[in-house]
Amino acid sequence: MRNTQVTLSARPVGIPQSEHFAIVTADLPELADAHFRVRNRVLSVDPAMRGWTNAAPNYVPPVAVGEVMRSFAAGDVIESRHEGYPVGTRLAGMFGWQEYADDNGSRVTRVVPDDGLPLSLSLGVLGLTGATAWLGLLDLGRPQPGDVVVVSTAAGAVGSVVGQLAQAAGARAVAIAGGARKVALCRDEFGFDAAIDYRSPTFTEDLAAAVPDGVDVYFDNTAGTISDAVCSHLSVGARIVVCGTASVASWDPPPMGPRIERSILAKRVQMAGFLFFDHQHRAPEAWRRLAELVKAGRLRYREEFLDGLAAAPDAIAGLYRGENLGKRLIRLC
Amino acid sequence: MRNTQVTLSARPVGIPQSEHFAIVTADLPELADAHFRVRNRVLSVDPAMRGWTNAAPNYVPPVAVGEVMRSFAAGDVIESRHEGYPVGTRLAGMFGWQEYADDNGSRVTRVVPDDGLPLSLSLGVLGLTGATAWLGLLDLGRPQPGDVVVVSTAAGAVGSVVGQLAQAAGARAVAIAGGARKVALCRDEFGFDAAIDYRSPTFTEDLAAAVPDGVDVYFDNTAGTISDAVCSHLSVGARIVVCGTASVASWDPPPMGPRIERSILAKRVQMAGFLFFDHQHRAPEAWRRLAELVKAGRLRYREEFLDGLAAAPDAIAGLYRGENLGKRLIRLC
Repeated sequence: MRNTQVTLSARPVGIPQSEHFAIVTADLPELADAHFRVRNRVLSVDPAMRGWTNAAPNYVPPVAVGEVMRSFAAGDVIESRHEGYPVGTRLAGMFGWQEYADDNGSRVTRVVPDDGLPLSLSLGVLGLTGATAWLGLLDLGRPQPGDVVVVSTAAGAVGSVVGQLAQAAGARAVAIAGGARKVALCRDEFGFDAAIDYRSPTFTEDLAAAVPDGVDVYFDNTAGTISDAVCSHLSVGARIVVCGTASVASWDPPPMGPRIERSILAKRVQMAGFLFFDHQHRAPEAWRRLAELVKAGRLRYREEFLDGLAAAPDAIAGLYRGENLGKRLIRLC
Repeated sequence: MRNTQVTLSARPVGIPQSEHFAIVTADLPELADAHFRVRNRVLSVDPAMRGWTNAAPNYVPPVAVGEVMRSFAAGDVIESRHEGYPVGTRLAGMFGWQEYADDNGSRVTRVVPDDGLPLSLSLGVLGLTGATAWLGLLDLGRPQPGDVVVVSTAAGAVGSVVGQLAQAAGARAVAIAGGARKVALCRDEFGFDAAIDYRSPTFTEDLAAAVPDGVDVYFDNTAGTISDAVCSHLSVGARIVVCGTASVASWDPPPMGPRIERSILAKRVQMAGFLFFDHQHRAPEAWRRLAELVKAGRLRYREEFLDGLAAAPDAIAGLYRGENLGKRLIRLC
């Protein structure tokens, strides 16, 4: 049996383009003891994959040139020598841009119940991004009814869920996104109570008008000047969940910004960093609750499918060109 | 009966000096219904009183020219028309720089049990500063055995208690203070495991050498560049308690400093502002526990007494001249 794979063929600087990947075919080895084989049905395309291809140090070492491109994927077990993962088990995990992946369980992020929902959701609203929104917002942000919750990169996979969960908790959700198209998506599709374009010359005034009673929770995916603007509106007892720093190009050395200690003290703000892996023991509960909301039609999400491995090499570059308006996925069958 | 008082006689800019105060004597009025009269035994001299004399906006409006100087004080009820405060009750409160104060209870910060400990302690280690150290460190800092706790302005009324409580909780306590005299006080009298002089040209290296395994809790009384240095050593899961911003002269506009969002995220730091009045419902418990530690000889403190109201007008200026090495108090009898 042959396995078609997308490998990193050259080391990019910055955003990886088509020419940095190769599509290759390899024989599948015999399945090792205590391993299982997943047939990938859908592959993930995530902004973080840019970092995984670059040589700069990050949370994880870079993908080596010649290796299968690291990615999240979802599929089902088609062969097994591992009693914990029998044939037919639906899984999401770090299975890479390839048709088949062998694993001993170490790369599994979620065993996906056959609950009638599409397997692709386990790479988005019922995957790490959904659980990040649930746990980050509800554990660290702790929205109360009547609170004002502001979310940056609100049209994104995490932000769009945060806004809807904030509303489900009785809060008013205010989106910050870049460009008219994403702002409209936040307002019209994800149902934010207000949506502000941070690229607008009137951003500061627009934000002030959207939060006349201050900000109780700020779910921060950007850091930088967008966050400075939000932080000038914090209410007493506000919570800041730092989940990403997308707007800051480099942290070595850290860029300068206005000091926040006085706001933290005078407003008795609680600011905390959220990393999924610290909280993953609670993710199954989050997925169960998120699935209930999806089934009840109370949680909207947007997926965009590319077809086949041939679409993979250009897929990350496309993200950075801003092509997609939803979770980008590659469908294999 | 006559009441000797220290009034603000002129509006200072910056640090109030002797010439900004007058010592006057007034007749005591008849005690109003539902009021009681306190005979002050000891008056407090605090750095915050500088702000109370200045015209700039602060937490509280400034003391008006001609008014009794606002201050904490402790004494006992000598006359009462308030059933909640019978004659003989020991109180600490915002009773001002005067011999006698009439109140309806609104200025009381603590009813002090007659537990054999000096009344003056209710203005320090068994007052707001002690409770601030207890609640700020234990509720927000949450030191665990083996943690490293760094405290800025560690020789001060709050910092010196924080260090000792950190050690009582099994943590290693590292002091940051200004000048050799305060550093020695932290090390020799308050028993910090290490003490660093932020004025030293080798401050950065000294700090790095003192926290080779990182910082788990930072109790921040300074903000600014001292905090920047500490924050470069944060461990994963670190807690920052923002209790004061003494090193920053002005916050309008906020001074610039290195952005901290990446550290907050990568280290999953929890940063929170602490203001006593948010937590005062828990202060009686803190005072009871602190009193036990004092009685057991497990909590050291340092008081410095000036004698009589005549010492008051120069007392705040003296604080800023760095004269005192402990909680400054004025003893009235």
